Amino acid sequence: MVRIFVTGGTFDKTYDEIHGRLAFADTHLPEMLALGRSRVQVSIRTLMMIDSLDMTDADRDVIVRNCAQCAESKIVVTHGTDTMVETARALAHGVTGKTIVLTGAMIPYAFGSSDGLFNLGSALSFVQVLPHGVYIAMNGQHFPWDRVRKNRDSGIFEPPG
Amino acid sequence: MVRIFVTGGTFDKTYDEIHGRLAFADTHLPEMLALGRSRVQVSIRTLMMIDSLDMTDADRDVIVRNCAQCAESKIVVTHGTDTMVETARALAHGVTGKTIVLTGAMIPYAFGSSDGLFNLGSALSFVQVLPHGVYIAMNGQHFPWDRVRKNRDSGIFEPPG
Amino acid sequence: MVRIFVTGGTFDKTYDEIHGRLAFADTHLPEMLALGRSRVQVSIRTLMMIDSLDMTDADRDVIVRNCAQCAESKIVVTHGTDTMVETARALAHGVTGKTIVLTGAMIPYAFGSSDGLFNLGSALSFVQVLPHGVYIAMNGQHFPWDRVRKNRDSGIFEPPG
Amino acid sequence: MVRIFVTGGTFDKTYDEIHGRLAFADTHLPEMLALGRSRVQVSIRTLMMIDSLDMTDADRDVIVRNCAQCAESKIVVTHGTDTMVETARALAHGVTGKTIVLTGAMIPYAFGSSDGLFNLGSALSFVQVLPHGVYIAMNGQHFPWDRVRKNRDSGIFEPPG
Repeated sequence: MVRIFVTGGTFDKTYDEIHGRLAFADTHLPEMLALGRSRVQVSIRTLMMIDSLDMTDADRDVIVRNCAQCAESKIVVTHGTDTMVETARALAHGVTGKTIVLTGAMIPYAFGSSDGLFNLGSALSFVQVLPHGVYIAMNGQHFPWDRVRKNRDSGIFEPPG
Repeated sequence: MVRIFVTGGTFDKTYDEIHGRLAFADTHLPEMLALGRSRVQVSIRTLMMIDSLDMTDADRDVIVRNCAQCAESKIVVTHGTDTMVETARALAHGVTGKTIVLTGAMIPYAFGSSDGLFNLGSALSFVQVLPHGVYIAMNGQHFPWDRVRKNRDSGIFEPPG
Repeated sequence: MVRIFVTGGTFDKTYDEIHGRLAFADTHLPEMLALGRSRVQVSIRTLMMIDSLDMTDADRDVIVRNCAQCAESKIVVTHGTDTMVETARALAHGVTGKTIVLTGAMIPYAFGSSDGLFNLGSALSFVQVLPHGVYIAMNGQHFPWDRVRKNRDSGIFEPPG
Repeated sequence: MVRIFVTGGTFDKTYDEIHGRLAFADTHLPEMLALGRSRVQVSIRTLMMIDSLDMTDADRDVIVRNCAQCAESKIVVTHGTDTMVETARALAHGVTGKTIVLTGAMIPYAFGSSDGLFNLGSALSFVQVLPHGVYIAMNGQHFPWDRVRKNRDSGIFEPPG
């Protein structure tokens, strides 16, 4: 059983057609897992639905506490990419004895040409086989939490320079 | 470096609009990796472009020989789902000391609502971390080659009964 | 009120993932009208769900009779492109005092990159403003039934040479 | 020959993945016409690429002048929906002897589930057959410029109450 915690981020952004702007509604995770015909046993819980630039220390505490207290030892966290590394660090300091994989997307799943489905397939796979620890899975790769940064110019996750 | 061998299958079926039927043209792998913003170093080679129901023993020999002789020890094979287990067995008997992951799709990538991108993200991730052996990665799961069958009624890969 | 008669054709082909082949299930018309946010009052009826190459004279009689007998004077017929001109001729001989527009698609709507939504928007618009007669609406254009042929090599509808 | 003037609006919004926000880049019109397999002779010119809420009187003058001075008598204007009626009024007062159809979209074309392709097929069809005048084509319907308003709550174009 894999636990999935949803926190928002580009992954789950939608287009609010009445107001003509980006917005958050319900998570697309169940729809994405159905599209991927996933047979992995998962339990999904939405913790928050926010842009990761707006994430506070209190929000991170909520994520850490949920990861620490849940029964599952394999956890995927969907997260905005901008502060994903920061949350990974908080998780590494607050949770032990579990495999936690953070993932996200550069393009919203709802917008057709998204990397979200690829990243979800990747994160769900890594979490099943990696040893305990906190990882970021983006661009088909996985990085331990302390050996990765997001390149803000290219949008790519890469080892720190 | 991951080697990707393309053999066709539903993954790469397209719609031939002049004749109104399914057909094979070029592989969609590069386009799919671009959509997923994959940063995994890969080398793609198309070995054949066929429906796996039409795959002969000679075709399987070609796949086995290519997997055995290529320089890379991490290999993804895209393959039709109907005889994927058969090819996995041939690979298990003919190749040692490598991690080989076969994957495919139930819906063609070109048809919009495909599981292909999810499966590709999954297969590329599994191949990077699984020990040597031959595996099938479908539905977000991975199976050793000798502990899986395709359920023809549901289209699902599952442990043999 | 516009009457829409569905007869099948590429428009409504789907991919049967269990058998790996093209098939017909329910029409996509209601879904397409919802996607287009259409506010045109329509009444949809599926007369048959077949490839137009398989359409018999008896099938054409069914279409003609339904167009002649329905209460509406504005009618859209979705139809396979291969014999669309033939059915248009049958309608021209069998129905008077109505505006009938036949349309279809080169790529199934279900397959993502379809011309179907464009053609539906076009056909629904033409039928509201064209004088009585039988027309084919494809490629953004409209043709009277006796001044059009399908170019089998290019898939394009054009005036006869 | 139909002239198409592009002014921006939801139609052409894209997702800026580096900054995680909506943006304008190049118009999607040529790509949309290719997807629809349009064979209508068109000449496309981008006049501006803005949200219609930001459109000034000077911007509207540019649109009116271009419509008045171009050689074609059949013109489609793609436009944001919020002030489409205002621009239609300006065109009705500034241009005579031409058929001008304004259209737009509630969901950006780039975001997959857009009404844009349907509306484009509709607008291109109406402009070919409607008498001289200024019209809005949305939701499969057409309205003379002075008998329509946008319902801000529902996003629907409708006759004024």
